[in-house]
Amino acid sequence: MKVRTLIIGAGAGASYFLVGLERARETGDLTGVPLARHLKYYRPEDIEVIGLVDVEVTKVGSTARSIASKLVPGVDPPKDLDGLVVQRGLHCGSLKGLPVKAMGLEEVLGSVQEAFDQFIALLDELRPDVVVNAITTEPLRYAETEEEFASKASSCQGGATMAYAYAVAEHSRRSGRHVAFINLTPPPIANSPGVVSYYARIGSLVLGDDAATGATPLTADILEHMAERERRVLSIAQFNIGGNSDFLSLVEPERNYSKEITKGAMVKDILGYDAPHYIKPTGYLEPLGDRKFVAMHIEYEGFGGFRDEIAVSARINDKSNLAGLIASVIPVAKGLVDRGISGTHATANRFFMKLPGPKDLRITSKIVAYYDLLEELRRLDLAT
Amino acid sequence: MKVRTLIIGAGAGASYFLVGLERARETGDLTGVPLARHLKYYRPEDIEVIGLVDVEVTKVGSTARSIASKLVPGVDPPKDLDGLVVQRGLHCGSLKGLPVKAMGLEEVLGSVQEAFDQFIALLDELRPDVVVNAITTEPLRYAETEEEFASKASSCQGGATMAYAYAVAEHSRRSGRHVAFINLTPPPIANSPGVVSYYARIGSLVLGDDAATGATPLTADILEHMAERERRVLSIAQFNIGGNSDFLSLVEPERNYSKEITKGAMVKDILGYDAPHYIKPTGYLEPLGDRKFVAMHIEYEGFGGFRDEIAVSARINDKSNLAGLIASVIPVAKGLVDRGISGTHATANRFFMKLPGPKDLRITSKIVAYYDLLEELRRLDLAT
Amino acid sequence: MKVRTLIIGAGAGASYFLVGLERARETGDLTGVPLARHLKYYRPEDIEVIGLVDVEVTKVGSTARSIASKLVPGVDPPKDLDGLVVQRGLHCGSLKGLPVKAMGLEEVLGSVQEAFDQFIALLDELRPDVVVNAITTEPLRYAETEEEFASKASSCQGGATMAYAYAVAEHSRRSGRHVAFINLTPPPIANSPGVVSYYARIGSLVLGDDAATGATPLTADILEHMAERERRVLSIAQFNIGGNSDFLSLVEPERNYSKEITKGAMVKDILGYDAPHYIKPTGYLEPLGDRKFVAMHIEYEGFGGFRDEIAVSARINDKSNLAGLIASVIPVAKGLVDRGISGTHATANRFFMKLPGPKDLRITSKIVAYYDLLEELRRLDLAT
Amino acid sequence: MKVRTLIIGAGAGASYFLVGLERARETGDLTGVPLARHLKYYRPEDIEVIGLVDVEVTKVGSTARSIASKLVPGVDPPKDLDGLVVQRGLHCGSLKGLPVKAMGLEEVLGSVQEAFDQFIALLDELRPDVVVNAITTEPLRYAETEEEFASKASSCQGGATMAYAYAVAEHSRRSGRHVAFINLTPPPIANSPGVVSYYARIGSLVLGDDAATGATPLTADILEHMAERERRVLSIAQFNIGGNSDFLSLVEPERNYSKEITKGAMVKDILGYDAPHYIKPTGYLEPLGDRKFVAMHIEYEGFGGFRDEIAVSARINDKSNLAGLIASVIPVAKGLVDRGISGTHATANRFFMKLPGPKDLRITSKIVAYYDLLEELRRLDLAT
Repeated sequence: MKVRTLIIGAGAGASYFLVGLERARETGDLTGVPLARHLKYYRPEDIEVIGLVDVEVTKVGSTARSIASKLVPGVDPPKDLDGLVVQRGLHCGSLKGLPVKAMGLEEVLGSVQEAFDQFIALLDELRPDVVVNAITTEPLRYAETEEEFASKASSCQGGATMAYAYAVAEHSRRSGRHVAFINLTPPPIANSPGVVSYYARIGSLVLGDDAATGATPLTADILEHMAERERRVLSIAQFNIGGNSDFLSLVEPERNYSKEITKGAMVKDILGYDAPHYIKPTGYLEPLGDRKFVAMHIEYEGFGGFRDEIAVSARINDKSNLAGLIASVIPVAKGLVDRGISGTHATANRFFMKLPGPKDLRITSKIVAYYDLLEELRRLDLAT
Repeated sequence: MKVRTLIIGAGAGASYFLVGLERARETGDLTGVPLARHLKYYRPEDIEVIGLVDVEVTKVGSTARSIASKLVPGVDPPKDLDGLVVQRGLHCGSLKGLPVKAMGLEEVLGSVQEAFDQFIALLDELRPDVVVNAITTEPLRYAETEEEFASKASSCQGGATMAYAYAVAEHSRRSGRHVAFINLTPPPIANSPGVVSYYARIGSLVLGDDAATGATPLTADILEHMAERERRVLSIAQFNIGGNSDFLSLVEPERNYSKEITKGAMVKDILGYDAPHYIKPTGYLEPLGDRKFVAMHIEYEGFGGFRDEIAVSARINDKSNLAGLIASVIPVAKGLVDRGISGTHATANRFFMKLPGPKDLRITSKIVAYYDLLEELRRLDLAT
Repeated sequence: MKVRTLIIGAGAGASYFLVGLERARETGDLTGVPLARHLKYYRPEDIEVIGLVDVEVTKVGSTARSIASKLVPGVDPPKDLDGLVVQRGLHCGSLKGLPVKAMGLEEVLGSVQEAFDQFIALLDELRPDVVVNAITTEPLRYAETEEEFASKASSCQGGATMAYAYAVAEHSRRSGRHVAFINLTPPPIANSPGVVSYYARIGSLVLGDDAATGATPLTADILEHMAERERRVLSIAQFNIGGNSDFLSLVEPERNYSKEITKGAMVKDILGYDAPHYIKPTGYLEPLGDRKFVAMHIEYEGFGGFRDEIAVSARINDKSNLAGLIASVIPVAKGLVDRGISGTHATANRFFMKLPGPKDLRITSKIVAYYDLLEELRRLDLAT
Repeated sequence: MKVRTLIIGAGAGASYFLVGLERARETGDLTGVPLARHLKYYRPEDIEVIGLVDVEVTKVGSTARSIASKLVPGVDPPKDLDGLVVQRGLHCGSLKGLPVKAMGLEEVLGSVQEAFDQFIALLDELRPDVVVNAITTEPLRYAETEEEFASKASSCQGGATMAYAYAVAEHSRRSGRHVAFINLTPPPIANSPGVVSYYARIGSLVLGDDAATGATPLTADILEHMAERERRVLSIAQFNIGGNSDFLSLVEPERNYSKEITKGAMVKDILGYDAPHYIKPTGYLEPLGDRKFVAMHIEYEGFGGFRDEIAVSARINDKSNLAGLIASVIPVAKGLVDRGISGTHATANRFFMKLPGPKDLRITSKIVAYYDLLEELRRLDLAT
């Protein structure tokens, strides 16, 4: 059974995903898709991408194939992607300050209200089961109540991510279709109580926030390893440097900030105390491209007061990571919606996200989250 | 309630443990003791070391304090350790070929039979609840049946580890006391069906084999991290170099071999396939002492066929690790015996050991083993 | 023959130096002092510290010993340091914005002019051969001409480093004594043409700028290694994180900036082209103390277009490094002055400094600089 | 002016070299060729490969192109290499014990004497200026005197490397042509006094031994960096693991041994004392291919007794390294012969080789060797 999927943000993550999905279909190779061997009913192969949305002027109207040919190195994208043309979405200032030219529906139409109407009409036409938000990282804005969500989102003042979440909710509410909105970016959607309760009320689901890619999941699991041995972690330093637009956009402190709070909560929740840490995307170095360089250093004390140290140097393709995660979270989300789950789903968020909602949820290591999720999916007859 | 504990092998592991245990008692600081915050009824603080056994001529008759002052760097061992004098044990050729002079009871008495009698008499007198085997790594020798165990062990042909396991079993059988024998070294005790069934029959317990210290538990958990993301691990290299007698003894290929098979099983069981790997203690470099240097390199493929790499450089004090593990496994073992568990205990072995018995047991990552063990201990009302 | 030395800045660098110098005198061990085995006439052991200057209110009036006991971990500072009491120097706003309370002579006396008079009187009394500037990193300010130097410095508008350079020059000019002023901090002194020509005119010498400690000298030599093999360096990332006040002060972008330009010039001068690089002090993590963590990643192309990568993880005590460098540069500077060298000395600067003066000097790798300096010192009969 | 070059050993090193040389000729890009920008008269582009020799049965009679297509990954070898067909050389047991089938001239002809005659006849026909020995690492065998050289070599008892050196010398002696024999493998040729004096007598030149590729040159330069700062190196560990036939052959202890002595001399000569070290090719891991993984750990003491540590993780393509070195040493050797230099040449050996001859030559760091060689080449008008 197909999972009709709309992707918002025609960037590298979406491109790696689209190219990799075709490759996976052809070869049957699901390497890099978490849970792939366990999923049933809905599986990665069932994903059908029915739409792609962006606001960059160079992308709107282009095919997924031409975009992928620029963003996915060393790959000749499949011809099928010629049929997927980028449609214009909502801007809400999300790319302000970055060196790209953007034009959202509200800018073309001259009216935010009309922009929402038109975007919801697009949703009505596409009838997605799952909407994946993979736009550029925006500054953080919360919605405590449903009213705040509706008013901030519908006026574009909550940013593009919130606007899309709202449009999808409106489509769901009006049509009675239950939809999953998956927020892979840091702005709080699953962490906004107003969004979660709105979605709960209409029988739809948000998963989020901030897809757990890169080195942070590994750091989480290394910290779990320390915690289980009751080691006292004295300091944690983790640097990231990359050469794609993510790192370029993080040079703006406001966008970077949203990355920081995620890590502090992780350290405290897994270790049980707030070990001194410095975990941040650090810089931009163009030749690295999507294969970022990560350096980590952890010093800790063991039994008898002796000190050990671990240093990690890694080269990690964040976009390949993200694409594999997308291929897993889409069928999971569709399955959860089918089983009647609405609002948000802490267990799925804990595994797939860096800042799992709902708000103030205790973070666990990824290994723990994985087994909790697998058990839950088995209980729901969604996994073997 | 005290846990009467006999330690076999007055080496660095035992010394770090004895020094650290006193320190933990004084300060209440159980840093580095796995599960410490959860254990109840029997806790690390309840361990009472009632005897220490070795066969090196320079150690027999010495106090634990004088030995610790040589083996634990930068520490003034507590005065209490003056009261713990090393008693002579069984040699059975365990130190043959190494540059130390050893003399076991059988060599002093001129008779293996008398040596066993005398050692069992010592056990009768000490009445240990737990016996910890921490002698130098011996070559591997199995016992498929109880008869093979009895005959190989009682003739010293199974090596010292097997001989001690047998003496403890004999003490248990004759006295009716239920004892835990914890084998922290690679020779197969919990992996010898003959030993396990012998212990099961007399209501006693063996845990083993090969204490999970050093970098291998971390490697296990990193591999788990990869497996959950369905990454295809292309190669694993792990080097270890250290400056203590463990590394000196591993220069003998026969002793090193026992370390190798452990790692191959781990890779296959956790990943689900036998990824090409080279995981071995590699060399001896005296100035490193107990703080060994570990280098690891893992290359893997993610979604879409992209390759990532992780390199780890670590400085790890194996002996501090081992000592913390000893402080945890002793109360666990005592608790299991009290709850009527005999033979061996796969769940405890999986967490504490590198080659967990019984034979052909599937290895799991350490994080998985940890939660399984914690659940089991809670079920038995041994942990909170 | 003694080398009368005044140290400005009673921080960790000075403290490590003072403690280490006493230790070296006692033990005869000159480990960590570059060129130590070669120096003659003036040697590290000949250094006599005759004064110590600072402006922090908690330091002025304290003894070098009490300061060292706080700043040099794990060491009981020698009693001799009780005799060295911190005297008040010039502030010129150098600590503005940092979380310390400072009060310079100009603030106590209410007059910049009187402050200079009093500080020059101190120099007249102390009669130093060498003055070492080791204060906290200030923002950069140049002096193109002698007039600019004199006017900026004497009004405090050039910052404290320039003010001290000027006071020393005035002392030299008036007394006719030839003095060496060694600037270990980034602000341009040896790189300020106005300062160099002023010093040249009065027969005195400045060496600078920015002591070559930490990982940067190693990076320079690794780049030299690449350049000699005609490898094409594709990217260089170098992160530093530490827990002392240097890293705290670098959080201010203006101070950090002075560190950046140094590295860009190094890359270009050694490789012959400006390879993309990110080389910066990155963050503050208190528990690291003086032992900072450094991570480096270099990717390059070799013959036939194949790509290699090198990652370095290091733990480096910058302050021990700096202290050893101070112990070497002082006798070198004194020897150069004795041989009639004035203005500045490119060859010495190239080895000891990160941004060697005079202005626009081509940077070399450290290994090349070392041999050039050794040859020069031999020519001047200052080294064996 | 062409440099007529014969290559012995049609392995990966030769293949990378041949492919890279064509590429360099086409693109003009000499990246990865040491000294490339400085060489004059004879330059990398002037190399003309006139013959290729091997004894593996699958290689003799094959074209360089078909061999390169198997050994150089990701490259379509140039068509020109179709014209270069592997000719049969001398075996002398050099591949004994390795899993390849070999058949040398002496085995085909049934006579060692005839084999030499035929091989010398080949040299007479090809008239090489330079012969490059790049065969698989053999066990070490010395020749103290010219007589020992002649007798061991001509009977095949000195191994293949010595046999080739002898055949080239005989060709040179009989024809009066001055030839350079470059030994890139560990067996002592430039380190055998008998070989060097034989070559000196006939006006020809040997360079050797053991091409300085991989991580060891970098280690040498890092040690130089330490030595200049008078740091006391406490321990050095360096591991190598690779997936090509070099690593496979080093599993034989006799072949590995020849690698070890090289490193010990290096440590002592550069540091001035024999710091404890473990520097060895460590293992074979097939998926790594030519891109070996190198891990290094250096601990040292600096000023005041503080300890620092450096860990390096590198991925290095040894064969690309070697190929670039070959492209540099050939024109250098030809130039030296032209300038009348015979016997061996310490300065060239120090830069290009791991165990530079003549025997007992003091090793220097590579950076020092580089500048010494450049100066010498300039003096001889061979470099700019």
